[in-house]
Amino acid sequence: MPVLPLPTDRGRLLVVCPDQPGIIAATSRFLFDRGANIVHSDQHSTDPRGGGEFFLRVEFDLQGLPERLPEIDAAFSTEVAAPRAMRYRFALAAQPQRLGVFVSREEHCLLELLWQQRAGDLGAEIALVISNHRDVAPLVEPFGIPFHHVPVTKDNKADAEAQQLALLAGAHVDTVVLARYMQVVSAAFISRWENRIINIHHSFLPAFVGAKPYAQAHARGVKLIGATAHYVTEELDAGPIIDQDVQRVDHRHGVDDLKRLGRQVERTVLARAVSWHAQDRVLVYGNKTVVFS
Amino acid sequence: MPVLPLPTDRGRLLVVCPDQPGIIAATSRFLFDRGANIVHSDQHSTDPRGGGEFFLRVEFDLQGLPERLPEIDAAFSTEVAAPRAMRYRFALAAQPQRLGVFVSREEHCLLELLWQQRAGDLGAEIALVISNHRDVAPLVEPFGIPFHHVPVTKDNKADAEAQQLALLAGAHVDTVVLARYMQVVSAAFISRWENRIINIHHSFLPAFVGAKPYAQAHARGVKLIGATAHYVTEELDAGPIIDQDVQRVDHRHGVDDLKRLGRQVERTVLARAVSWHAQDRVLVYGNKTVVFS
Amino acid sequence: MPVLPLPTDRGRLLVVCPDQPGIIAATSRFLFDRGANIVHSDQHSTDPRGGGEFFLRVEFDLQGLPERLPEIDAAFSTEVAAPRAMRYRFALAAQPQRLGVFVSREEHCLLELLWQQRAGDLGAEIALVISNHRDVAPLVEPFGIPFHHVPVTKDNKADAEAQQLALLAGAHVDTVVLARYMQVVSAAFISRWENRIINIHHSFLPAFVGAKPYAQAHARGVKLIGATAHYVTEELDAGPIIDQDVQRVDHRHGVDDLKRLGRQVERTVLARAVSWHAQDRVLVYGNKTVVFS
Amino acid sequence: MPVLPLPTDRGRLLVVCPDQPGIIAATSRFLFDRGANIVHSDQHSTDPRGGGEFFLRVEFDLQGLPERLPEIDAAFSTEVAAPRAMRYRFALAAQPQRLGVFVSREEHCLLELLWQQRAGDLGAEIALVISNHRDVAPLVEPFGIPFHHVPVTKDNKADAEAQQLALLAGAHVDTVVLARYMQVVSAAFISRWENRIINIHHSFLPAFVGAKPYAQAHARGVKLIGATAHYVTEELDAGPIIDQDVQRVDHRHGVDDLKRLGRQVERTVLARAVSWHAQDRVLVYGNKTVVFS
Repeated sequence: MPVLPLPTDRGRLLVVCPDQPGIIAATSRFLFDRGANIVHSDQHSTDPRGGGEFFLRVEFDLQGLPERLPEIDAAFSTEVAAPRAMRYRFALAAQPQRLGVFVSREEHCLLELLWQQRAGDLGAEIALVISNHRDVAPLVEPFGIPFHHVPVTKDNKADAEAQQLALLAGAHVDTVVLARYMQVVSAAFISRWENRIINIHHSFLPAFVGAKPYAQAHARGVKLIGATAHYVTEELDAGPIIDQDVQRVDHRHGVDDLKRLGRQVERTVLARAVSWHAQDRVLVYGNKTVVFS
Repeated sequence: MPVLPLPTDRGRLLVVCPDQPGIIAATSRFLFDRGANIVHSDQHSTDPRGGGEFFLRVEFDLQGLPERLPEIDAAFSTEVAAPRAMRYRFALAAQPQRLGVFVSREEHCLLELLWQQRAGDLGAEIALVISNHRDVAPLVEPFGIPFHHVPVTKDNKADAEAQQLALLAGAHVDTVVLARYMQVVSAAFISRWENRIINIHHSFLPAFVGAKPYAQAHARGVKLIGATAHYVTEELDAGPIIDQDVQRVDHRHGVDDLKRLGRQVERTVLARAVSWHAQDRVLVYGNKTVVFS
Repeated sequence: MPVLPLPTDRGRLLVVCPDQPGIIAATSRFLFDRGANIVHSDQHSTDPRGGGEFFLRVEFDLQGLPERLPEIDAAFSTEVAAPRAMRYRFALAAQPQRLGVFVSREEHCLLELLWQQRAGDLGAEIALVISNHRDVAPLVEPFGIPFHHVPVTKDNKADAEAQQLALLAGAHVDTVVLARYMQVVSAAFISRWENRIINIHHSFLPAFVGAKPYAQAHARGVKLIGATAHYVTEELDAGPIIDQDVQRVDHRHGVDDLKRLGRQVERTVLARAVSWHAQDRVLVYGNKTVVFS
Repeated sequence: MPVLPLPTDRGRLLVVCPDQPGIIAATSRFLFDRGANIVHSDQHSTDPRGGGEFFLRVEFDLQGLPERLPEIDAAFSTEVAAPRAMRYRFALAAQPQRLGVFVSREEHCLLELLWQQRAGDLGAEIALVISNHRDVAPLVEPFGIPFHHVPVTKDNKADAEAQQLALLAGAHVDTVVLARYMQVVSAAFISRWENRIINIHHSFLPAFVGAKPYAQAHARGVKLIGATAHYVTEELDAGPIIDQDVQRVDHRHGVDDLKRLGRQVERTVLARAVSWHAQDRVLVYGNKTVVFS
């Protein structure tokens, strides 16, 4: 569970394939033959009795990994993956993912990400911050992270997204984080970043989808409020859930109190989800996630 | 927070009225003048700035309370309540509420109530158990509590309810607890027991209303499952919430695991809600509750 | 539960006295007679059956309170407090407490306080930051809060404390917060700030008193780590506890992981304790606290 | 995570050995060659960079396992275990562990175990109940489980233990559970049941070791109470911790309230620990546990 810095010889292997006997034997043999030491290994099958989908995440140490990776990848593709219809991916643990953080006026989620990066707890690097307002610019500046103001109006939506996409490309961003970004992202944008846009919704989904969830929660009289980090899909607030948490409330709390208490849950849940995602701990299948936390 | 046994001189006063200055002054003066010692007091206003509803719960010790209560009640009515449009109620703490527990085949919620009563933690007395099946009868018997089998079919609904109502009346039941009772209770029944039927729903409401909530939760891929204790109203699973709690789950848990883990949450939440209700700690307004826990 | 901003006519009354009949009647009558509207009221008796200590916290609205407070205070002293041996205190809710935050090199607790103040969630004002290192100065500066570097060595302890006390006095500080301040404060200092120094200890006290609690926790193999906010007394880590919380850990977590996970708990617990204290919700008796949260 | 019933072809393999490359490759190859399908696999190294201890738990399905196990065990011993200095153990998942439950007068932990067994959630079988009192006998009887009254006095300690050991042997007990058993077990007894006696201590260890932990907790003014399930070692309340949990309390709770609230935590924690142990999910090293939950 150490986050950063990680040794340059630390690698990760992610595998998804139809469940079948021998996956682990073949994979661990392959790594062993190349001198790797398996540091951590997680697996999951959606149906161990057969016919399920199989998920594997292996962390390993292998001397000279950065140089040897192309050769290892090619060999794995032929020898292990192809015969088993595997989708797989190798990653260098020491190369942190680059995040593009979208934010509007609420700053608490952004601040949490900035601080956790600074503390070395995020396991990722904020490459740039994009906002449709200027308010949070002074918060970002001391961290030396580029801030871009991209105003969004009814009329310039397409232009604004084009500009955002260009900024993300220019900064070599791997993952987009919607840290209380109060604009709807287009289907076209989403499809280009499939399972790579993480949103924080300020309710315990699927309760209170859509606008003003704290007001909805207050009206219903719930005794716990929550927050949900999920991948963004076309359907609003309906994408695969990465993490959720709750906070006890009572009759004394008005909507403003729910917002205040909710801020703590939102930022914790979002930062945790981003950190897991950035460490390749989250695998999506259908509309759900496997989280090797 | 002691539950039972309670001193015979311990009383509770519950008040609901339009918020206005002087409620506490008048009420505490009234009790003081009669020699009462206030042991605990909770209050809530839905809008302290004016125009709100005011809720008050006072626990007090007053020598000879059981004999003096009729006189005290009459005086309070005239002197304090009438001028302020108060609804109020006095209760003797030592006189535990009598519960009628409805159950089907799932026994965990019933067992929790039985044990907590036995341990003196429930603050209420189970007067009888009614079930549409015979399965749980042997569990109830050792506790010396009457068990009644009232089968419910499509054709005998009205008769069955008439029989249930007669049993409840005969046992002087104050509150009905639906401890995983898998039958819909009629609107007529509900209206006769307004805010006196407590149900446990096996989800974190308002998520997963209706049938098979664990299957729904599994399909949505939530990371927390929950349970909700609420008063029963005509609209399914939509009544005032008394208590909720959750349990963390992950991708390894199938629907059966959710059921198993959920059982723990269900029985805890239901027993807590029943105990609060039985101690007059729950006040309903609109579709919400004030819980002086 | 709203925190800030609060109306200028909002007052708080804190009372501690020997338990006796009529305290609430007399107090609420006194406030009612002056036109106050009680917004919230909490009470506690250490022994309701007699001989206990009684604690009362009342929030009320009273037009023109700031101007009328001296007269009200004097009247309360004579009419209500004196006959009942009460210690009491009135406070203007709109006048936030001023905090002096002490910190060493670990910044997470300081940052949490800074952000919560900025978000209006702290219910207090950070008047100055004092550190024995210069590291956190750049973090404080953007908030426009004075930062003072007061180095502490074996030889200059008394001088350093004198300097600290002068800074606190000059900034009209009400409460000192040790936000991971890694220096022992002298008995003389503590006695001048009785029940007004809040420390965060990075364990679930009374487990793991003293140095390196995460290393101690790791060595013992606990399954939960915790943090404790408490008032500082002469005996190390033994003062009245204000708040505690925990975080689940497992065998995979090394000491560095415990530190990382613990940071989240520490900052949450400290900020909550400071906020409660600043709103006069914490009353000390013996070595314990009553927290009207 | 399904608990019971488990397929008769489901096996578990537990391995502890010095960390070294190739353990997983060799083990998974061995199982694959015999036609096993790995259903779940967990591993842990105390130091992945070398020199650590390695722990492995594999669940697998293998047709005809009960008959083939002796041959498989022998082969594993020679081919895989011996060259790597492994300690290992195969277990048939469908063969539940047999528990000997010791109890005194407090019944809540015993009841929880009885009920969870009945519900099929315990993953173990209560073979007998032994008590130094007769109080709980009527609770055990309806479950058809043998109850033995073994009185313990100052003078008959050795005799009583001899009687207990004979009962355990006669009932083929695998694990002893001290479910609030208020007698000290002798060092001789403990050494015969190393890491096979589970105790529930009613505090968050290492806080409040020894007698009357709730009274200790109340005196210290903690804001959370807890319970700890641990293996019994010679030193009181100092053995390897399996699980812990906590419950929030406040100034209103007296010692009796702590006991009442604590009962819920105790029984949950104990049942969880027993269930994990019975499923071979707990591995001990030094004074700590690895829990593959």
